Amino acid sequence: MRVEGQARTAIWPAPERDAVFVIDQRLLPHRLAVLRLDTPEAAAAAIRDMAVRGAPLIGATAAWGLALQARTAADDAALRSAAAQLNATRPTAVNLAWALQRMLERLLPLPVGGRAAAAWQEAGRIADEDVACNAAIGTHGAALIVEASQRLKRRVNVLTHCNAGWIATVDWGTALAPVYKARDAGVDLHVWVDETRPRNQGASLTAWELGQEGIAHTVIADNTGGHLMQHGRVDLVIVGCDRVTRRGDVCNKIGTYLKALAAHDNGVPFYVAMPLSTLDRTMADGLREITIEERSPRELTHIAGLGPDGALVEVQLTPATSPALNLGFDVTPARLVTALITERGVVPANETSLEDLR
Amino acid sequence: MRVEGQARTAIWPAPERDAVFVIDQRLLPHRLAVLRLDTPEAAAAAIRDMAVRGAPLIGATAAWGLALQARTAADDAALRSAAAQLNATRPTAVNLAWALQRMLERLLPLPVGGRAAAAWQEAGRIADEDVACNAAIGTHGAALIVEASQRLKRRVNVLTHCNAGWIATVDWGTALAPVYKARDAGVDLHVWVDETRPRNQGASLTAWELGQEGIAHTVIADNTGGHLMQHGRVDLVIVGCDRVTRRGDVCNKIGTYLKALAAHDNGVPFYVAMPLSTLDRTMADGLREITIEERSPRELTHIAGLGPDGALVEVQLTPATSPALNLGFDVTPARLVTALITERGVVPANETSLEDLR
Repeated sequence: MRVEGQARTAIWPAPERDAVFVIDQRLLPHRLAVLRLDTPEAAAAAIRDMAVRGAPLIGATAAWGLALQARTAADDAALRSAAAQLNATRPTAVNLAWALQRMLERLLPLPVGGRAAAAWQEAGRIADEDVACNAAIGTHGAALIVEASQRLKRRVNVLTHCNAGWIATVDWGTALAPVYKARDAGVDLHVWVDETRPRNQGASLTAWELGQEGIAHTVIADNTGGHLMQHGRVDLVIVGCDRVTRRGDVCNKIGTYLKALAAHDNGVPFYVAMPLSTLDRTMADGLREITIEERSPRELTHIAGLGPDGALVEVQLTPATSPALNLGFDVTPARLVTALITERGVVPANETSLEDLR
Repeated sequence: MRVEGQARTAIWPAPERDAVFVIDQRLLPHRLAVLRLDTPEAAAAAIRDMAVRGAPLIGATAAWGLALQARTAADDAALRSAAAQLNATRPTAVNLAWALQRMLERLLPLPVGGRAAAAWQEAGRIADEDVACNAAIGTHGAALIVEASQRLKRRVNVLTHCNAGWIATVDWGTALAPVYKARDAGVDLHVWVDETRPRNQGASLTAWELGQEGIAHTVIADNTGGHLMQHGRVDLVIVGCDRVTRRGDVCNKIGTYLKALAAHDNGVPFYVAMPLSTLDRTMADGLREITIEERSPRELTHIAGLGPDGALVEVQLTPATSPALNLGFDVTPARLVTALITERGVVPANETSLEDLR
């Protein structure tokens, strides 16, 4: 998608095949900076420190991280060790393990001498497939927005939580792909952007993406969506996901569950954009089985922004002696999900539908 | 309650009867500063600019503001004009209009020469009654926490949203009065403190209050409470309110409705601490009838905190070109409220119960 009018992706390989480049998302929306990742350690650090984030982008970054490992040592032990290191960076996103597993399954049967080239090719294929997958999610999801537009005969208001836009993937995004595709189809729409505390991915990334694409949007506190739904100011909710169980329970950014409750209470459709790579068939009951990532309390007690002199400054928000708890995700039970928007179509969030997609 | 070990109230009169003092809440938790208000204009500015906030404290400040007017000009026109000016500062809190109406009803029948002394006395009475009222709310609400403690035989976890502590009143608080009284009764408890975006009254004021009183607490993002309730980590919710309709619909800080939905979905009792002065019998349907205050988008797009060098700094969080919407309150329908904790006891949130309290 576009940044300052230019087409970009969130990750791209160096022509020399010795590195990948990513946008450093920690500096957005205030600075556009590119990171060059030339070792598996650098790729792992970019994921762990959230220079890149978003389940599909994490998967692609990890795949290229393993390809960077294969450049220097491609024996089984080296690849398995690098994969384990990359896999340990974030516990929630299923795409991370999925991408690494796919890479290992492709590489380990090959002779060691052929692994580096195959790894680079496979990582590129994972990225290309992500683009195609999200474009398809966009097409299927856009139909829901077009339908709302035709039914309501006015501007359609979409609410989204966190950032599941193109910057969370390789391109298009998951939750925002339908928005971009609907805009391309000429639909008049507006997006309510949850700021998404504590890391503010909505206020910093979703707002930035939509602004760069010229799409009407308004940033709101995470507390606001319920009120807007009570007053008919939200026509549909679309969020992304980090892991979906075979029953359709959705693990996504903390606070998603609260928006799903409000949507349910007010008869607002609640959609989850889900690449099938996010489906975890090993799990059924999301509330009991999904491990929720606990991150540093400092992400909650401190926040960085643009200071009065134009420099990025971190400020402390809480009393120095008050503890804080920073949980990254929550689980929305399938009963609150109107439908899942996958690359193969829009399906109900239940075990039968998800089994049919095998 | 205590600040640095010393007993304080949120507002207190000068012995010379020419001013009132308030704690400037905009600087908490980082600085403890006292403002001297010596004109009705200063009192109005303190309310409008949120140096003081919280429905009961706003009422007391407005009452003293009118008493300050009566010192210099106490004729009907002067008092009515000052009352109108004070009343226009914040649209949501019913206590503001209530306190001013009570002052006018007390003063206007008196000879002009006797009004200044009577006004000072009446404002003091409003403040004293607020203390007594909140102490009674504390006693009634503490019984609910004591009951939970005896039933669970472990530490009780209370979740609260925004700040309805002593700093939002004259003393004790409304939602936190039960916490303080339960602590005084020896109950082992812990408070989950919603940071309460966009103004962060939880992270800055509730956390500060509880820390000063030595009560165990943890600051969380507003997004987190639903997850905690899903996992049995919240035993009861207690929030304050700015206006309650005769049917029991509760207008409180934006985001309260989302917590009420989560409490309902997980069988967690949801209590609203409500001084009867907050009851608005003129309204029935809170969703349709209560005007919701829209505040400056800057409260959402920018935030102030303690910078690296110990100075207070304001930083920008969003892209400069992204609009933001800042609504201050939402309405929780009575059906989601387990009970109202009033100074006259704990009652169901419905028209019959509230009618019985006449």
